[in-house]
Amino acid sequence: MKLHESPSPNARRVHIFMAEKGVEIERVAVDIRGGENLTPDYKAKNPAGRVPVLELDDGTFIGESVAICRYLEALHPQPNLLGSSAKEIALVEMWQRRAELNFMMNVAMAFRNITGFFKDRETPVKEYGEVSAVVAAEFVPMFDDQLGKTQYLAGDNFSIADITMAIAWGFAGQVKVVELPAAPNIERWLAEVNARPSFSAS
Amino acid sequence: MKLHESPSPNARRVHIFMAEKGVEIERVAVDIRGGENLTPDYKAKNPAGRVPVLELDDGTFIGESVAICRYLEALHPQPNLLGSSAKEIALVEMWQRRAELNFMMNVAMAFRNITGFFKDRETPVKEYGEVSAVVAAEFVPMFDDQLGKTQYLAGDNFSIADITMAIAWGFAGQVKVVELPAAPNIERWLAEVNARPSFSAS
Repeated sequence: MKLHESPSPNARRVHIFMAEKGVEIERVAVDIRGGENLTPDYKAKNPAGRVPVLELDDGTFIGESVAICRYLEALHPQPNLLGSSAKEIALVEMWQRRAELNFMMNVAMAFRNITGFFKDRETPVKEYGEVSAVVAAEFVPMFDDQLGKTQYLAGDNFSIADITMAIAWGFAGQVKVVELPAAPNIERWLAEVNARPSFSAS
Repeated sequence: MKLHESPSPNARRVHIFMAEKGVEIERVAVDIRGGENLTPDYKAKNPAGRVPVLELDDGTFIGESVAICRYLEALHPQPNLLGSSAKEIALVEMWQRRAELNFMMNVAMAFRNITGFFKDRETPVKEYGEVSAVVAAEFVPMFDDQLGKTQYLAGDNFSIADITMAIAWGFAGQVKVVELPAAPNIERWLAEVNARPSFSAS
């Protein structure tokens, strides 16, 4: 297997997932800033033009970070990161999606539309970026409330939802386009999650 | 179990999933236009304020349509709609996410930002809606190419990815904010998918 990737929050999600599983995969750098992901050669690997992509030994390409994680979970079920009982599977998916769709995506939209980081390949709309920044901040209390009740986002067990949220939170702090409200429970949880070996290994 | 819901593409995704599984669940109407989903009572069920939400008999609430589908799949594994082998699980997730993130979400952003449908509760940015409409249309050939090679989006088997894409395509046709390019393979596939009993039952 080979992981075609570029430094990004999504690559980091997969790296942490791999480190939690104790899985190592050969990595191939893709030059996103130079537009390598938009070339016909790359689009044959991933027609969506995104990174990372996992190349299987049979020549299949798996795009989408969460799809790569599901593949790795199916090959290496322990430690479990996507839930085991029906209810846990559902709660992990719910919080993974909330972390991704309600928070991470709004942070990303704020970043891309306010800074115009990808303006050579998309049309940034600053006003929408500002709206997205407000929406991202408005969702913070939902996560903070949950982490006041449970150790990890989806309950007692560390899961992919924690990986997504911790990376999105770190990214938000780094790009500084979202005014993050005080969130003491998130800070408590973040200190624990960031101390995991997988977070420094990758 | 009870499904709290309002007529929407997301409710329809869950209904079709249920019909494919042969599962019936009591339905409770939520008045989205009247803002019932923004009340404290509803937010105790789903702090994200979204529908549908599945209420389990133990009082747990599962938000996010795809999380509800994963719960139903875990309870009723056959017919399988989320993949069985590691590779199939990954390909279903990849196409499900592409259908959702690359197409459905851009259609939804175009609709909400161009029409201001939810302007009582969010700030529509028309220019961003127009950008989203273009992006949604630009992704159509990716799906059309795939459906020129495989019977269903993720390969030989009907999956949740087909449900998401068919509903998103129907929604795009209905709200008319995206100029959809010709897509003969999508049309071939859509005729087959729309003819499934689950699509008329729900």
